[in-house]
Amino acid sequence: MDIGNMSSMLESFRDGRISLEEALEKLKSFPYEDLDFVKIDHHRMMRQGFPEVVFSQGKTVEQVAEIVSRLSQCNRNVLASRATAEMYEAVKAVVPSAKFHPLAKMIVVQQEELTPDPERVILIMTAGTSDIPVAEEAAITAEVMGNQVKRVFDVGVAGIHRLLSQHQLIEAANVIIVVAGMEGALASVVGGMVAKPVIAVPTSVGYGANFGGLSALLAMLNSCAAGVAVVNIDNGFGAGRLASIINKMR
Amino acid sequence: MDIGNMSSMLESFRDGRISLEEALEKLKSFPYEDLDFVKIDHHRMMRQGFPEVVFSQGKTVEQVAEIVSRLSQCNRNVLASRATAEMYEAVKAVVPSAKFHPLAKMIVVQQEELTPDPERVILIMTAGTSDIPVAEEAAITAEVMGNQVKRVFDVGVAGIHRLLSQHQLIEAANVIIVVAGMEGALASVVGGMVAKPVIAVPTSVGYGANFGGLSALLAMLNSCAAGVAVVNIDNGFGAGRLASIINKMR
Amino acid sequence: MDIGNMSSMLESFRDGRISLEEALEKLKSFPYEDLDFVKIDHHRMMRQGFPEVVFSQGKTVEQVAEIVSRLSQCNRNVLASRATAEMYEAVKAVVPSAKFHPLAKMIVVQQEELTPDPERVILIMTAGTSDIPVAEEAAITAEVMGNQVKRVFDVGVAGIHRLLSQHQLIEAANVIIVVAGMEGALASVVGGMVAKPVIAVPTSVGYGANFGGLSALLAMLNSCAAGVAVVNIDNGFGAGRLASIINKMR
Amino acid sequence: MDIGNMSSMLESFRDGRISLEEALEKLKSFPYEDLDFVKIDHHRMMRQGFPEVVFSQGKTVEQVAEIVSRLSQCNRNVLASRATAEMYEAVKAVVPSAKFHPLAKMIVVQQEELTPDPERVILIMTAGTSDIPVAEEAAITAEVMGNQVKRVFDVGVAGIHRLLSQHQLIEAANVIIVVAGMEGALASVVGGMVAKPVIAVPTSVGYGANFGGLSALLAMLNSCAAGVAVVNIDNGFGAGRLASIINKMR
Amino acid sequence: MDIGNMSSMLESFRDGRISLEEALEKLKSFPYEDLDFVKIDHHRMMRQGFPEVVFSQGKTVEQVAEIVSRLSQCNRNVLASRATAEMYEAVKAVVPSAKFHPLAKMIVVQQEELTPDPERVILIMTAGTSDIPVAEEAAITAEVMGNQVKRVFDVGVAGIHRLLSQHQLIEAANVIIVVAGMEGALASVVGGMVAKPVIAVPTSVGYGANFGGLSALLAMLNSCAAGVAVVNIDNGFGAGRLASIINKMR
Amino acid sequence: MDIGNMSSMLESFRDGRISLEEALEKLKSFPYEDLDFVKIDHHRMMRQGFPEVVFSQGKTVEQVAEIVSRLSQCNRNVLASRATAEMYEAVKAVVPSAKFHPLAKMIVVQQEELTPDPERVILIMTAGTSDIPVAEEAAITAEVMGNQVKRVFDVGVAGIHRLLSQHQLIEAANVIIVVAGMEGALASVVGGMVAKPVIAVPTSVGYGANFGGLSALLAMLNSCAAGVAVVNIDNGFGAGRLASIINKMR
Amino acid sequence: MDIGNMSSMLESFRDGRISLEEALEKLKSFPYEDLDFVKIDHHRMMRQGFPEVVFSQGKTVEQVAEIVSRLSQCNRNVLASRATAEMYEAVKAVVPSAKFHPLAKMIVVQQEELTPDPERVILIMTAGTSDIPVAEEAAITAEVMGNQVKRVFDVGVAGIHRLLSQHQLIEAANVIIVVAGMEGALASVVGGMVAKPVIAVPTSVGYGANFGGLSALLAMLNSCAAGVAVVNIDNGFGAGRLASIINKMR
Amino acid sequence: MDIGNMSSMLESFRDGRISLEEALEKLKSFPYEDLDFVKIDHHRMMRQGFPEVVFSQGKTVEQVAEIVSRLSQCNRNVLASRATAEMYEAVKAVVPSAKFHPLAKMIVVQQEELTPDPERVILIMTAGTSDIPVAEEAAITAEVMGNQVKRVFDVGVAGIHRLLSQHQLIEAANVIIVVAGMEGALASVVGGMVAKPVIAVPTSVGYGANFGGLSALLAMLNSCAAGVAVVNIDNGFGAGRLASIINKMR
Repeated sequence: MDIGNMSSMLESFRDGRISLEEALEKLKSFPYEDLDFVKIDHHRMMRQGFPEVVFSQGKTVEQVAEIVSRLSQCNRNVLASRATAEMYEAVKAVVPSAKFHPLAKMIVVQQEELTPDPERVILIMTAGTSDIPVAEEAAITAEVMGNQVKRVFDVGVAGIHRLLSQHQLIEAANVIIVVAGMEGALASVVGGMVAKPVIAVPTSVGYGANFGGLSALLAMLNSCAAGVAVVNIDNGFGAGRLASIINKMR
Repeated sequence: MDIGNMSSMLESFRDGRISLEEALEKLKSFPYEDLDFVKIDHHRMMRQGFPEVVFSQGKTVEQVAEIVSRLSQCNRNVLASRATAEMYEAVKAVVPSAKFHPLAKMIVVQQEELTPDPERVILIMTAGTSDIPVAEEAAITAEVMGNQVKRVFDVGVAGIHRLLSQHQLIEAANVIIVVAGMEGALASVVGGMVAKPVIAVPTSVGYGANFGGLSALLAMLNSCAAGVAVVNIDNGFGAGRLASIINKMR
Repeated sequence: MDIGNMSSMLESFRDGRISLEEALEKLKSFPYEDLDFVKIDHHRMMRQGFPEVVFSQGKTVEQVAEIVSRLSQCNRNVLASRATAEMYEAVKAVVPSAKFHPLAKMIVVQQEELTPDPERVILIMTAGTSDIPVAEEAAITAEVMGNQVKRVFDVGVAGIHRLLSQHQLIEAANVIIVVAGMEGALASVVGGMVAKPVIAVPTSVGYGANFGGLSALLAMLNSCAAGVAVVNIDNGFGAGRLASIINKMR
Repeated sequence: MDIGNMSSMLESFRDGRISLEEALEKLKSFPYEDLDFVKIDHHRMMRQGFPEVVFSQGKTVEQVAEIVSRLSQCNRNVLASRATAEMYEAVKAVVPSAKFHPLAKMIVVQQEELTPDPERVILIMTAGTSDIPVAEEAAITAEVMGNQVKRVFDVGVAGIHRLLSQHQLIEAANVIIVVAGMEGALASVVGGMVAKPVIAVPTSVGYGANFGGLSALLAMLNSCAAGVAVVNIDNGFGAGRLASIINKMR
Repeated sequence: MDIGNMSSMLESFRDGRISLEEALEKLKSFPYEDLDFVKIDHHRMMRQGFPEVVFSQGKTVEQVAEIVSRLSQCNRNVLASRATAEMYEAVKAVVPSAKFHPLAKMIVVQQEELTPDPERVILIMTAGTSDIPVAEEAAITAEVMGNQVKRVFDVGVAGIHRLLSQHQLIEAANVIIVVAGMEGALASVVGGMVAKPVIAVPTSVGYGANFGGLSALLAMLNSCAAGVAVVNIDNGFGAGRLASIINKMR
Repeated sequence: MDIGNMSSMLESFRDGRISLEEALEKLKSFPYEDLDFVKIDHHRMMRQGFPEVVFSQGKTVEQVAEIVSRLSQCNRNVLASRATAEMYEAVKAVVPSAKFHPLAKMIVVQQEELTPDPERVILIMTAGTSDIPVAEEAAITAEVMGNQVKRVFDVGVAGIHRLLSQHQLIEAANVIIVVAGMEGALASVVGGMVAKPVIAVPTSVGYGANFGGLSALLAMLNSCAAGVAVVNIDNGFGAGRLASIINKMR
Repeated sequence: MDIGNMSSMLESFRDGRISLEEALEKLKSFPYEDLDFVKIDHHRMMRQGFPEVVFSQGKTVEQVAEIVSRLSQCNRNVLASRATAEMYEAVKAVVPSAKFHPLAKMIVVQQEELTPDPERVILIMTAGTSDIPVAEEAAITAEVMGNQVKRVFDVGVAGIHRLLSQHQLIEAANVIIVVAGMEGALASVVGGMVAKPVIAVPTSVGYGANFGGLSALLAMLNSCAAGVAVVNIDNGFGAGRLASIINKMR
Repeated sequence: MDIGNMSSMLESFRDGRISLEEALEKLKSFPYEDLDFVKIDHHRMMRQGFPEVVFSQGKTVEQVAEIVSRLSQCNRNVLASRATAEMYEAVKAVVPSAKFHPLAKMIVVQQEELTPDPERVILIMTAGTSDIPVAEEAAITAEVMGNQVKRVFDVGVAGIHRLLSQHQLIEAANVIIVVAGMEGALASVVGGMVAKPVIAVPTSVGYGANFGGLSALLAMLNSCAAGVAVVNIDNGFGAGRLASIINKMR
């Protein structure tokens, strides 16, 4: 029952075509999701540039192609994460404008161009070069959502001067995403340098007592720098989306 | 060597009292922490209302009293977290204006009043009543930093209608802190309701397979709602501080 | 020694052909499994539609084909879980009536048709689309055992209105199976909506701090909703069978 | 806004005192929890004997006393779990009819007597004597909810004949709760003996590689007997409530 | 320096060809492994039928072939565990008498026949059919070491009557090896039936919360039956060897 | 129904006082635990010196006293493990002959003296002095069961010459119990020195990454020495009982 | 048999008082620990200042007093770690010269003064003030062993400029011990600043996802800075001793 | 801004071309990494023979080839760890002098020959043959850095006499690297034999309760021998580099 149906029902009641009991009965089973405020919320999300997102991992090539195709028909931007080159080929066959970012493993259908505010930069940093794919997932996500993104890669804490030389970029950023595997210490050092929101993404980069990203995850959760919050291991998308939400606050 | 010393040194060099080599040598050992930009950063933090913070756990009563006392002499606000009533008594003896929040276990010395922007609300929600102490730690932290805070407690997902009836408060908030133990599901539900930054605080509330907060922590990290980031188990302070940083962005 | 042998023995004793000592000796080594009450139990299980079940994983194609073939000779229904398409080909060669459910990875030999009670519905819900294979394993299991099954997929808690719009189906169900990976919160929300038995199946769907299904498992075990019980990660079969047992209680 | 308010609003609209727009606006913010169907649900739960439940652990003596007192005013049965003797004293002072079960650590206010169906027995079994407190929590819960409960304690699998001698009780039960620590094997053996719902409660009884109940929990989740579902470690209450829900199905 | 060298040295000293200091010096660096008692120990092990053992996993095909070949030259029995068919082909090319047990993944070179004592039986039991490869590794090991072995497979506790019907074999055994995955309960039940040494081998058979054998391992370590000891997950060889040592005690 | 009742029943049947059907019916419900072979088993255990055992931990002082008192009335030896001095006082009040071993935390009621075979020694070794209480639990257990026990304490592998100097005792032992915390390496070294059954008891002695005995447990399970089997952390009793079972084999 | 006895034996043999067989027999049972080279090793350790060490945790007050007293009689330095004030009182009563370091929980009996080389400094750094007790345990250990120790406390990475301002001390040190809890990042940053041996000591300082020091431990093991090695959580003594060994190498 | 630019700037200031304020401003943003002392540090590292190191795992063949090629242009030694044969082929195409160590999976470009001090030996020991690849990674690393390396492989503690026969090599070594999987006991035994720095490398060699190297890791961290420090699982490179740093101390 949408807002139109509800109007009709109320008018039927006013006009005596349905009884008070019937009106109450209908209202009791009123489906929440059709209330206007929910629709408004959807509109607002669209205006803010949040695209439709498909998590491709665990889906078949055909499923990904079909979902992206269907979502693309609404003139919305569409983002498919954790996609393979093979998935991209299938998508491109049905949505020719789709682009592929192999490092980030992301398919992007950009149907609505968003103009980022150049003054509000999301800075994405990695500790090592192996963390770059996760960082790119975050970067592409933030860019598709209409943010200005800067990348500073391979500035891990074991070469602290490399990191410190970036202090002007760090100072100038609005939101910072730190992507690091192994001991994940970069989040603490950056978090201690500025009073900015720092979103830490532990990665599964490493071996042995890294235990699939556990070492970086625990380190980031235990960061002695306040202002650091953590997303799931290798979750570049989540970090990019949260950074975008924060970056667009006014 | 502070900025005054550096000026003197440069003038000595200009006046020929020290050689180029001597000047270079002195600059090489220039202590970083005295550079002005660091001080400026401190000033900015102070203007933004970030207080000096003392983590009292593991410190003696005397140590806490002395540290709070010393920090209070700079006319700054001081926050001592994880403090006991006994620590508070010792602090009050030397800093009579100190206040104690027993639920949050926090000692507050408020020497500088900050006027929160009533339009920018940090909403703090808990799943259960046992999560309230952690929520209060977050709330006091955010309030001392000059934020408008609203509390909605005991709206866990097992009674979803209680939660949904709060949708207007949720819609109106600027930043949301979700505090939950046990299965930690509240973060996902709230994160799915709005496109706001959601800071999830897992708590150690529960027993058995809760494993000291691990269940809520893993659940929140695996949240299917994008826009959720997680801090350490029971880390109300960290959540409050990060929420404050985000809330004051412009 | 079955019940017939036992009669003969008793008669031999009565007739003096064996002594009291011999009778006692024989009774001491009386094999338990041949006692009638056990057989009766088997009959009752058959009447309730419980099929013979083969766990195919870790068995060779030949072993699965042989076991299914042998079990099928007793006119019983046979269910082979975690089967591959290759296993199915081998089974079909010897049991032509066998059917394959590729999503559920189940081979079904339905030799005895059971008429489900349409008033007693087992509702199977999933949080995401990737959880569907596990849900189908539960669904096929319950259907082969003669239950009315309804499926509601992809109603995860991050879109709570999608879930709430299903409340009439939830209210009408007799037993509910909730299948969810990642943060596994769906079980708690559904468990809080009704006073029905809720069987929660954590899945290994997710990545990173999901740790192979651990996050959903712990969340479900810590559910703040009473009335929720949990089976092993990805154990759709177990959930379907338990739901069937409960659904057939009178 | 309760059902009375909604009637008034609808009448105001019919009588032209409020406009269609105003009526729609009011309905949009209609608080879900006041909808009749929710109340009806509550009524049904009450009729089924589900009491109000208080989880006392982590609450103060005063809080427990006040909550029990307030809940007792509605003529409902009230159950406070994980309560101490001291809490009971405080409760008894304000609710003189309250009873205490020290082994189960439960306070019961039984204001409405329920007549259990003697044909539908919930059988509660423990592996050892140390598991009895958890079993009693389950038993009291089920009894307060109006179920016939039978207890068979200390029948762990290391003395399998003790267990087998109980087969008539096991056969006759409607629902079975198995409470076991250490290796938790009792659930599998009982689950294999009957086609009944078996609710397994791992306990933290044991030491060393028991790891606070982890050994029994994992064993029960991996039970090779279908028909077994598991609740949290030491969660007697949850098992008792789920057993009651199942036992009252028709 | 073997016992012969030591004799020579002592004689040289006695005859004055080397000084006391030289004799002491030589004795200080006397290599322990050449002491006679060690050799005697080796001889005793050989007489008891302990073969030379090669752990093939992680070695190349060539390495396994060379090691087995070299060990076979001493007329000893040789056992290569965790071997592939390919490794066997390479071994057979150089040691034509080598036999392969594909289920147990073992290569056996039996150059010395041992006559087992038929009164002293090592009974090897498995809970399921998937546990058989590990059980066979134990069985082949024990047989090569000259023990009488009996196998009883697929008698898991979920069908307790199947197990109980084996009580005469269990009673008659001298040492019992219990091989079980999943919940590993078989060890406790068997351990409770007899006062015999029970060696429990957890297997990695299972899925989900089995965590690679952890569930069975913890269950067996927490066995409420005294008389049970545990070896590593999937360690059939270790169980077979320990059983053999115990079985040959007099 | 005991063996006497069964005789009566059979005679009634022979004499025609009960029918064949009645006799069969009675036999079907024949309680297994009263079968003679079980009693015989009990007798054999008694002859071998296996005492009645009470695990006191988690029981009240009164419960322990009552159980020990009751068990002592059958002229059997009784062993109460993990007992406190207070429990002992209560036991002694009712069983004056009870003895207490404070280090082992064991109460012993020795009513039947067993003469150990001096040729068959159980050697109990510890790595450190802190492991002695667990070792004593094993030693007292084995002694009460009538075994010759020798103790060699504090011979950890970090001082390998201390250990090697004990090689004659090790060579002479029949069964060896190795008790070690921390890195638990002693089991591997001893297991490599002899072809004897080695029962390894990991202890919770240590701190930090010892994780309550996990380090020693995992080390012992992964022992590269065949012939080593492991019991639960701190389970001296289990080791003592298994060693006794093995030591009495013939 | 010490070196004197061995000489006598050899002379007896040379002089024909014992036969070759007797000499060989005696040599076979020659106790290794009495060989001179072991004693020499002990002498060298003493010369290097390695004291006798007592790990007091888990020992009684009386045991600690007696052990320290006995060790002190050999004119050696004695170190008792993890000691309580009560233990110290008992020690002082029998060894009046004993000193107590309450922060490090160490009792020191310094009977031999060692002159440290002032050019070879062991630098001990902590991330926070709560790490100081562990750092002091390392410092006292190194000092008692005759090393020059410098302490730099509370220089955690969240305030990186504090750390960098210590670069001259870091550059000048010979060996560095880094003590840190929480995210343990200090080890990586320091390890990246210099090519010195860095011994990392994770501490149990922290809460929640610190899991008793696991977060710092894993972070340090995964350090991206080569040159870092790790000791057990809170093992200040081990770090101090290893640093001393390295520092005295020439 | 390098040292040349800084000179220019200072001269400009002296000559009045820039003001004091401008000079101060430039100095504030002075990039730390260009300071001479950092360069000096690099020079020192080069003089000590520390090569440039590439961690190849997770990089593409092309990336490895390019990085090695670029680093080789500076006449430095280059070490690429965890490299495949395919990577080596690509490297050799552009750097013909590159060598490959297949066991250690290392590519070495040795452009500067270093003369090791034959008196200062790094001894590398393994417990088993499967540990050799990790040991070789350590060995090649140490050799490229100009150290004298000795290898003693397959001396695990289960054959303690094999190990003890190496005592002269152990005594003669300057630094010892112990590489062991499974129970990792070798580190404790070696650590107890000498007062030398022992660097323990746990390996992932093993199966079952080895949990990817966890058993050896925990054992080594809990070593009862002081003087042992641990690096990450399978981290031969880290051990080799730390050993080299220690070995070159004077």
